[in-house]
Amino acid sequence: MNSFGHSFRITVFGESHGPVVGVTVDGMPAGIPLCEQDFDADLARRRSDASAGTTPRREPDRPEIVSGLYNGHTDGTPLTLLFRNTTTKPQDYAPLARHPRPSHADLAAARKYGGFNHPGGGGMFSGRMTVALVAAATAAKKLLPGVLFSTTITEIGGIQDPARFDALLTELRTAGDSAGGVVEVRAQGVAAGTGEPFFDSVESLAAHLLFSIPGVKGVEFGAGFGAARSRGSRNNDPIIDRRGTTATNNDGGLNGGIANGNEIVLRVAFKPAPSIALPQETFDFERDRPAPLTIAGRHDACIALRGAVVAEAALACALADLTLRAGNAVTG
Amino acid sequence: MNSFGHSFRITVFGESHGPVVGVTVDGMPAGIPLCEQDFDADLARRRSDASAGTTPRREPDRPEIVSGLYNGHTDGTPLTLLFRNTTTKPQDYAPLARHPRPSHADLAAARKYGGFNHPGGGGMFSGRMTVALVAAATAAKKLLPGVLFSTTITEIGGIQDPARFDALLTELRTAGDSAGGVVEVRAQGVAAGTGEPFFDSVESLAAHLLFSIPGVKGVEFGAGFGAARSRGSRNNDPIIDRRGTTATNNDGGLNGGIANGNEIVLRVAFKPAPSIALPQETFDFERDRPAPLTIAGRHDACIALRGAVVAEAALACALADLTLRAGNAVTG
Amino acid sequence: MNSFGHSFRITVFGESHGPVVGVTVDGMPAGIPLCEQDFDADLARRRSDASAGTTPRREPDRPEIVSGLYNGHTDGTPLTLLFRNTTTKPQDYAPLARHPRPSHADLAAARKYGGFNHPGGGGMFSGRMTVALVAAATAAKKLLPGVLFSTTITEIGGIQDPARFDALLTELRTAGDSAGGVVEVRAQGVAAGTGEPFFDSVESLAAHLLFSIPGVKGVEFGAGFGAARSRGSRNNDPIIDRRGTTATNNDGGLNGGIANGNEIVLRVAFKPAPSIALPQETFDFERDRPAPLTIAGRHDACIALRGAVVAEAALACALADLTLRAGNAVTG
Amino acid sequence: MNSFGHSFRITVFGESHGPVVGVTVDGMPAGIPLCEQDFDADLARRRSDASAGTTPRREPDRPEIVSGLYNGHTDGTPLTLLFRNTTTKPQDYAPLARHPRPSHADLAAARKYGGFNHPGGGGMFSGRMTVALVAAATAAKKLLPGVLFSTTITEIGGIQDPARFDALLTELRTAGDSAGGVVEVRAQGVAAGTGEPFFDSVESLAAHLLFSIPGVKGVEFGAGFGAARSRGSRNNDPIIDRRGTTATNNDGGLNGGIANGNEIVLRVAFKPAPSIALPQETFDFERDRPAPLTIAGRHDACIALRGAVVAEAALACALADLTLRAGNAVTG
Repeated sequence: MNSFGHSFRITVFGESHGPVVGVTVDGMPAGIPLCEQDFDADLARRRSDASAGTTPRREPDRPEIVSGLYNGHTDGTPLTLLFRNTTTKPQDYAPLARHPRPSHADLAAARKYGGFNHPGGGGMFSGRMTVALVAAATAAKKLLPGVLFSTTITEIGGIQDPARFDALLTELRTAGDSAGGVVEVRAQGVAAGTGEPFFDSVESLAAHLLFSIPGVKGVEFGAGFGAARSRGSRNNDPIIDRRGTTATNNDGGLNGGIANGNEIVLRVAFKPAPSIALPQETFDFERDRPAPLTIAGRHDACIALRGAVVAEAALACALADLTLRAGNAVTG
Repeated sequence: MNSFGHSFRITVFGESHGPVVGVTVDGMPAGIPLCEQDFDADLARRRSDASAGTTPRREPDRPEIVSGLYNGHTDGTPLTLLFRNTTTKPQDYAPLARHPRPSHADLAAARKYGGFNHPGGGGMFSGRMTVALVAAATAAKKLLPGVLFSTTITEIGGIQDPARFDALLTELRTAGDSAGGVVEVRAQGVAAGTGEPFFDSVESLAAHLLFSIPGVKGVEFGAGFGAARSRGSRNNDPIIDRRGTTATNNDGGLNGGIANGNEIVLRVAFKPAPSIALPQETFDFERDRPAPLTIAGRHDACIALRGAVVAEAALACALADLTLRAGNAVTG
Repeated sequence: MNSFGHSFRITVFGESHGPVVGVTVDGMPAGIPLCEQDFDADLARRRSDASAGTTPRREPDRPEIVSGLYNGHTDGTPLTLLFRNTTTKPQDYAPLARHPRPSHADLAAARKYGGFNHPGGGGMFSGRMTVALVAAATAAKKLLPGVLFSTTITEIGGIQDPARFDALLTELRTAGDSAGGVVEVRAQGVAAGTGEPFFDSVESLAAHLLFSIPGVKGVEFGAGFGAARSRGSRNNDPIIDRRGTTATNNDGGLNGGIANGNEIVLRVAFKPAPSIALPQETFDFERDRPAPLTIAGRHDACIALRGAVVAEAALACALADLTLRAGNAVTG
Repeated sequence: MNSFGHSFRITVFGESHGPVVGVTVDGMPAGIPLCEQDFDADLARRRSDASAGTTPRREPDRPEIVSGLYNGHTDGTPLTLLFRNTTTKPQDYAPLARHPRPSHADLAAARKYGGFNHPGGGGMFSGRMTVALVAAATAAKKLLPGVLFSTTITEIGGIQDPARFDALLTELRTAGDSAGGVVEVRAQGVAAGTGEPFFDSVESLAAHLLFSIPGVKGVEFGAGFGAARSRGSRNNDPIIDRRGTTATNNDGGLNGGIANGNEIVLRVAFKPAPSIALPQETFDFERDRPAPLTIAGRHDACIALRGAVVAEAALACALADLTLRAGNAVTG
């Protein structure tokens, strides 16, 4: 389904080449100051800058708030934002049906929806849908005034030195290829006790949302897969003071699924964008045999670049939900 | 909250040292043959075998089915199973409150629940709770007759050669230490189209459940974090036949959050068990300073060993839920 | 919250005098033919006809479908419809805050939302919100092709003879008063077995939605309150054939919360519209004493008139949800 | 499904003649004093007293609390209570399948569950299931310390004079018949603002639960169906003081779906128990024609008698849920 969240509930709708992508946020307390400009900063981080690594498709991404505000404050009704899709163009998407792109949802979606799904630009499977998540996170962050998010790209295509990212991205674009990347999201100031085990641990809710983001193939908290390669004597985080501060943070600020007051740390693995300029040999259903496919247009060389703010948004929405449940959110 | 699932809904209750751990499974169609013995095989895989790597605490784990069956079949009402906790013993848990164990939930839980949570054996944060998940998965698998699960431990403490696992576990036990591990779960035969984007992708539901398992710090699908280090030209999975078979399976059988008919592959990172025999320097709230803590009793040297079947259970429950939603589950 | 439904899930947003009233319907299978004109018939039934009984405010109520359709069919994504509010006008609603209308939500809402709720035209408490429910029901009915709804006004202000309704409504308008009414909804052709006890009986879901409609104060099924005044020997419905047809239908087609294949019959009590032209003595918070209140504008003399199609919509949405759950809905 | 509630969530399981009827209550804050005796008072009200109006089947109804308590307080985990069914006896229920009882769920259930449902004593459709609701309400009331419930039988078989109830019940028992009844539930002290429109009005949640109770055919709030027969000038409730007290209470303490601080008043119509001693002519599937059916055993002459505390329980659970959502519940 297209809703998520218990007390801070997001519903997304629309598709890449339909009239709009939209989001409804239910659960915002009344009285929170909010305006369209509040959404600009995070939306700008998500927007392509037409640099080496991102697509030249540029949507203005100006939200139209059609409900939930009155006199500059949330009014207790659901907040609905629309993003008009302005750069769509009529086009023949039939080729995708008969010659589906490798590692895209083309084939699986056509079968699931009997061919009725909107194929334009990936339809509901497009990265474009994440504009809804980023917008919802602007609302979420209003409920988390004490939380400081800090998000970085820590790896592109296996390279960990940011000084070398630009060179790699230029090389990828020249080669008509793409690369995966790793995004790290940190959140300081999350109230200890946030999280609702057994099933609604911080990790569970954040991962649920993170794995909804197109292209995400892995999520880890704290030392993550590194912890699996470690020992208890090294991996355990000794407590050093009354506040519960730990000497190390291999648990990424989370024990038993609830925040322990230390910084929450997670990393997200984005796969390489499957749309590449290089020709690919893949099954052609019309010819009934594999045949070379060339995907027209230009695309993101590394979706992790624009995915960084989306990953942060996923964590913010999960934390807002858990904060509202715990009854310690700010209210208007 | 303690429920999960839309159409196959699990509710867990109980705690490690309370009277029972229990689970209610709602959504089972009527008419599925089921009996207590059906639960034995997976429960046995989860049970400690008192080998080097697992705890000497051995619960018989015989489920008592108190509702949902009639004449050897599911009857359309919720299936409730109880596991009596037989090896609990009255004990003084106060030390945990004043000298909480590092990387355990002791401190975070005490704060969240104001000290009212049951501290015995970790209470609701105990790995013991996972007996509920494994039992639920026995029911889930009845709805997935064509799915073949195959689950292995692929790494312990960074070692990937299974021939060396025993030696490492013996070493850990001698040293009073523990190690993390990686579990790989594979599922063949999942119907293409399973998965309900945007938010209820196969990955999202599976990860939600996986991150509810105590000690899980990372989850990846297909090439996972490896994909983040790869390029599109290498990572894309070309389609080679009409059925949608792919030449490689870096996507782990999933595109756009829905099964593409290829094998679903995921890996789970378990951290080292935080309870180790080695003394640890950590904050003592009574003395108001760090002090050495020695945790009595013997524990799992590697929780991934017993966690393997639990990880498989999480995937099975997620798939059962999505299969019921799609309306293509077996019925009685 | 502003969502309802398990498998056919409606989310409403907006308010009477905000930019839009909108609704998102999640769960529609892909491939159902649908267009904007399909919504006209039921929306027309809900619209004021400026007759004696209904308000002169006339909204065109033309839905703008902004998501969920592709090539004239549902496409597997949520269906979102917007209704622009065209007849709102800037106005001073402050009087409502200091002199709240009797039997309206003015006071309760102001307190609940700290004065941040949109007061215009009743805001989210306006009958205008029901346009969303009626629109959702057009989608719901597409999933119930074999179900025939038949809805009538059976009583206005205690009068049961339809021939006398017009005279009463004219009298009410002249007097500046309003009257309550009873709506009866019948649904033939609902598949036996529809309904999911224990909690999701047909009655429970239908009543949940019906009591969300502003002004509804009572709901009964079959003989309803009459059954409470009857005896088993008279009230029981004997079965007369193999199909389960009953000689009488005091149960209104429902046993144990599930449809028995006979006609579903329910009645809904609408209270008199609380906005009346007659002056009312009620507390004035500015003067700190009761004072006469005269409500400007003209209003519905009997909200049951326009409420009839809304009540039918509530039942249709409940049945669509239960039909999708049972897996026997039509698909595209 | 068998769960209800957003923040105070009840899951019921079991059936009349299975091993147990049980209930899990999720969402109880930790630290609420609770013990098995707390459940006695309401369970006693529900229990048959073997008087003229109630069944001679008497279950001790002593709850076994198997989870959620520690040291006499709720501990933050779900509260699970079991009621062992002690008076079930092996019996041949096949006759119900071939000669289903009128106005019972026998036929509808057999068709829905393909004959796999437990027929004993009505199985999951038995009034016995309501013991779960009454137990849940004991927990609910702990969250509503300022709310005073007052519940009465206002009508039996159309008679409104309580002095005549006993005579009627004796007459019914002699005649082998049953009668319906009306229960009125009042709740004083509900915090103004309780209720979450659009869909989760107080009326919606209460009615949802009330219509899950076997035999309930109607629910009304305040003046209810009487309001439908009234006029606005008479039915409106003028506000008389700053606290929002109203001169009349035709709205039953509810405006726009939220509590206005006045007493909440609702009435519930119970139909006559369909199991009567009088022979009934109804379809016999074996003989393929209507034939007289005599239902053995003795039954409730008026289920409203025992249903009164169940109706109160439904309102209590709805209010507990809404109170937890509003964040103003007592905590331990």
